Amino acid sequence: MSIRLPHWLDKQAALNPNHIAIEQPSGETITFRELQRRSQSYAQKLASIGIKEGNHVAILSGNKVEMIVTVHAISYLGAVAVLLNTRLTASEIAYQLEDADVVGLICDPDFTSVAMQASDQQKFTPLTFLELEKQLSASVCLKQEINLNDVFTIMYTSGTTGFPKGVLHTYENHWWSATASSLNLGLHKSDKWLATLPLFHVGGLSIALKSVIYGMPMYLLPRFSVEAVHEGIMKRGVTIVSVVSVMVHQLLDKLNDSVTYPASFRCMLLGGGPAPKPLLEKAKSLAVPIFQTYGLTETSSQIATLSPKDALEKLGSAGKALMPAQLKIVQNGKEVAPGEAGEIVVKGPMVSNGYYKREPRQGDWLATGDLGYQDKDGFLYVLDRRKDLIVSGGENIYPAEIEEVLLGVEGVKDVGVVGKSDSKWGQVPVAFIVREGHVTEGNLKEHCLSHLAKYKVPTVFYFVDALPRNASNKLLRYKLHEELEKQS
Amino acid sequence: MSIRLPHWLDKQAALNPNHIAIEQPSGETITFRELQRRSQSYAQKLASIGIKEGNHVAILSGNKVEMIVTVHAISYLGAVAVLLNTRLTASEIAYQLEDADVVGLICDPDFTSVAMQASDQQKFTPLTFLELEKQLSASVCLKQEINLNDVFTIMYTSGTTGFPKGVLHTYENHWWSATASSLNLGLHKSDKWLATLPLFHVGGLSIALKSVIYGMPMYLLPRFSVEAVHEGIMKRGVTIVSVVSVMVHQLLDKLNDSVTYPASFRCMLLGGGPAPKPLLEKAKSLAVPIFQTYGLTETSSQIATLSPKDALEKLGSAGKALMPAQLKIVQNGKEVAPGEAGEIVVKGPMVSNGYYKREPRQGDWLATGDLGYQDKDGFLYVLDRRKDLIVSGGENIYPAEIEEVLLGVEGVKDVGVVGKSDSKWGQVPVAFIVREGHVTEGNLKEHCLSHLAKYKVPTVFYFVDALPRNASNKLLRYKLHEELEKQS
Repeated sequence: MSIRLPHWLDKQAALNPNHIAIEQPSGETITFRELQRRSQSYAQKLASIGIKEGNHVAILSGNKVEMIVTVHAISYLGAVAVLLNTRLTASEIAYQLEDADVVGLICDPDFTSVAMQASDQQKFTPLTFLELEKQLSASVCLKQEINLNDVFTIMYTSGTTGFPKGVLHTYENHWWSATASSLNLGLHKSDKWLATLPLFHVGGLSIALKSVIYGMPMYLLPRFSVEAVHEGIMKRGVTIVSVVSVMVHQLLDKLNDSVTYPASFRCMLLGGGPAPKPLLEKAKSLAVPIFQTYGLTETSSQIATLSPKDALEKLGSAGKALMPAQLKIVQNGKEVAPGEAGEIVVKGPMVSNGYYKREPRQGDWLATGDLGYQDKDGFLYVLDRRKDLIVSGGENIYPAEIEEVLLGVEGVKDVGVVGKSDSKWGQVPVAFIVREGHVTEGNLKEHCLSHLAKYKVPTVFYFVDALPRNASNKLLRYKLHEELEKQS
Repeated sequence: MSIRLPHWLDKQAALNPNHIAIEQPSGETITFRELQRRSQSYAQKLASIGIKEGNHVAILSGNKVEMIVTVHAISYLGAVAVLLNTRLTASEIAYQLEDADVVGLICDPDFTSVAMQASDQQKFTPLTFLELEKQLSASVCLKQEINLNDVFTIMYTSGTTGFPKGVLHTYENHWWSATASSLNLGLHKSDKWLATLPLFHVGGLSIALKSVIYGMPMYLLPRFSVEAVHEGIMKRGVTIVSVVSVMVHQLLDKLNDSVTYPASFRCMLLGGGPAPKPLLEKAKSLAVPIFQTYGLTETSSQIATLSPKDALEKLGSAGKALMPAQLKIVQNGKEVAPGEAGEIVVKGPMVSNGYYKREPRQGDWLATGDLGYQDKDGFLYVLDRRKDLIVSGGENIYPAEIEEVLLGVEGVKDVGVVGKSDSKWGQVPVAFIVREGHVTEGNLKEHCLSHLAKYKVPTVFYFVDALPRNASNKLLRYKLHEELEKQS
């Protein structure tokens, strides 16, 4: 039987109308009552442009209050929010709009031009937040209840095929993610969670949803800035911050014996791939409470987290699966013994049931494709994200997608893309190219820049005579990695 | 789709094996790993006496570690725990054993004799904890997962008919009750919840389940003692305690200007009926953080609670429905305006779906039968528990049940039972008797004591010529109340 809850924003606005929902570095704040009022107003305006229950509405925005308002507005209509990565090119976005059957696009004015371009082939015209605000208000029945089984958000993630797939998140996934996190980290009246990760990724969005479910202020940054995060922790009462490794590096550089975080700062939640050990050791020496986590878009953010008490003893571990979740290491279909590496397989009510327009997953367990092991005490160590996955500054990059684009350049015969270690970003993509005509690095870069988000564009192009492929023509990426190691 | 979680005790034993699960005034403690080990051992012993998945197993016990172990053991077998009130007479218990289709009874040695008597007509022989421990261990598959839709516990509550009904609680009800409470009260690493309420009531049991779900120690008292609770708060690090009004009176008497609770004590959760305002005012003047709650067996403990920040401003209110719950005031089938009184109607994933062997409730809303109103800010004020319900020291007493018993005395022609105000217990039952033969107060008392739990036995018997009944012969209890007022 499916559970219906009161709409969580209505409920929080009733419980704590005057509590702060969102605080910004400018000092501007919005209460839950105000967030409710604005979200309901947006919902009525979305309705007046024809958005109905079940419709898919895309949002292309940086971290802005209006984006959060739009997300809640979509839920008041029982529609589904498709969250677009602002770093994508128009053609990448166009693919997602098409694939997700989107019927409307609301965008941040900073992205109007790419939004227009991307929806060129669509029946709708993108609206900026301001344009939406100017619409009439339709008198519609807003959802007073949330059906936990309903899909709330879609976020795209690429796969081995090079074609991104829309991960479906139900309200249930988001709810359980929020409560599972609170059972691990605890929940204090004084909590304030800083959001600097993009809200179009699940790690960022989950903060905005926790804010409403917990009745907790979120401290919203438009983008990552080491100064702004530092200031948030030092002077603005931030108690928790979600980060990726590249941010930790910079944040720690601002600390020393005389500059330490206040005692009320209780958690730096580190996601987005395994962190380098020296970084964790530095954090430890500076008494920064880093909690390494493990999660995917498919798990609605963290599914495993190192709990406070183990943070120092199990340095480098991503902890144990959260209370309502399960995790095991599998090799050839069988669970392996502690210490042995294998594929990380997870289960829990925060795990998405599948992708839009794809068959739902069979069985409850999700095979992540990531490699790891559990020590004898059951702590997870992530060895490597999916063999072919490149994690660069917290963004996932799928080589197949870049290879697909490069094969579209005339004169390119074969392509192999892998990640190369990078001291700043963790990894960056590099490409191995087999030519059959006149192709220059300049051609390739230019083509990539017009088809791919900037962070996906290879930083180096190696021209080679042939790529290592096995008998069935499968690219042997480890050989490319060996090649890279030889060169460095 | 039904959600399966890892068995919560296994999970907590994996997350925090060496954390304390149960602490006792003697200083004895049990870790989660130990609680898991003992519960699994009990499960294997229960299996060896023939208990199987789906079986109903009764527990008759005071607040003892073994009782908690038995509850978890039953869940490891996928069986259902029927929690018996130790204050009941053998015949009251016999009714519940029969009605609940119980196939086994585990008891505290203090209650062996009543357990033997009560199960006289049954096919099983009650076992004490010690006798259970002496059984062989059957090699059975213990449940590794909890299916949230499964029924976990049954607790009896009487109704208007005088026949108690078994309230069914699923794992889902208990889980949502625990998480809803944490979203309201917060969750601190230092929390320690004192259990002095009987564990056979849902308010007590919920502490034992929260302990496992939160990974929090519970401080277990065998029974209420003002000294032991005071000591727990003052010296043993207790941060939260669940109480009923009669306990608060006594606890406050131990406080004064020089004796105050430590700052770490953050919540005295007050349930079991509306509390007298002078008591709340006294608590306020002594800076005791009282949070009045409202809940029923059917709502798996609290469904509304006054949150910390409103505790002082809305004295006397039971607050607002918890995050995932809803509450409204209804009169003649319609929701009434703020300030108007009516029946309290509730909804939420912690609300039981119904009673054993009764038709499940139609619709999601539960009509509680209790009277109350909401102020303009949405705060609930409970005016009166169900018109006929008598709440005495936190125990619910249903007049119909006592009337039924008294009508069984030869020479009694008619009976009406109502609650009389009592400075210590809140209310006590008194009986109005119409005789048609020779009946003395002695006869009546004796008969009651052999058929009813002591707290249900009327403290006064008024002999009258006739009872006020309306045309359809319905007893007009308000006229009895008027009669009582005249006499006092």
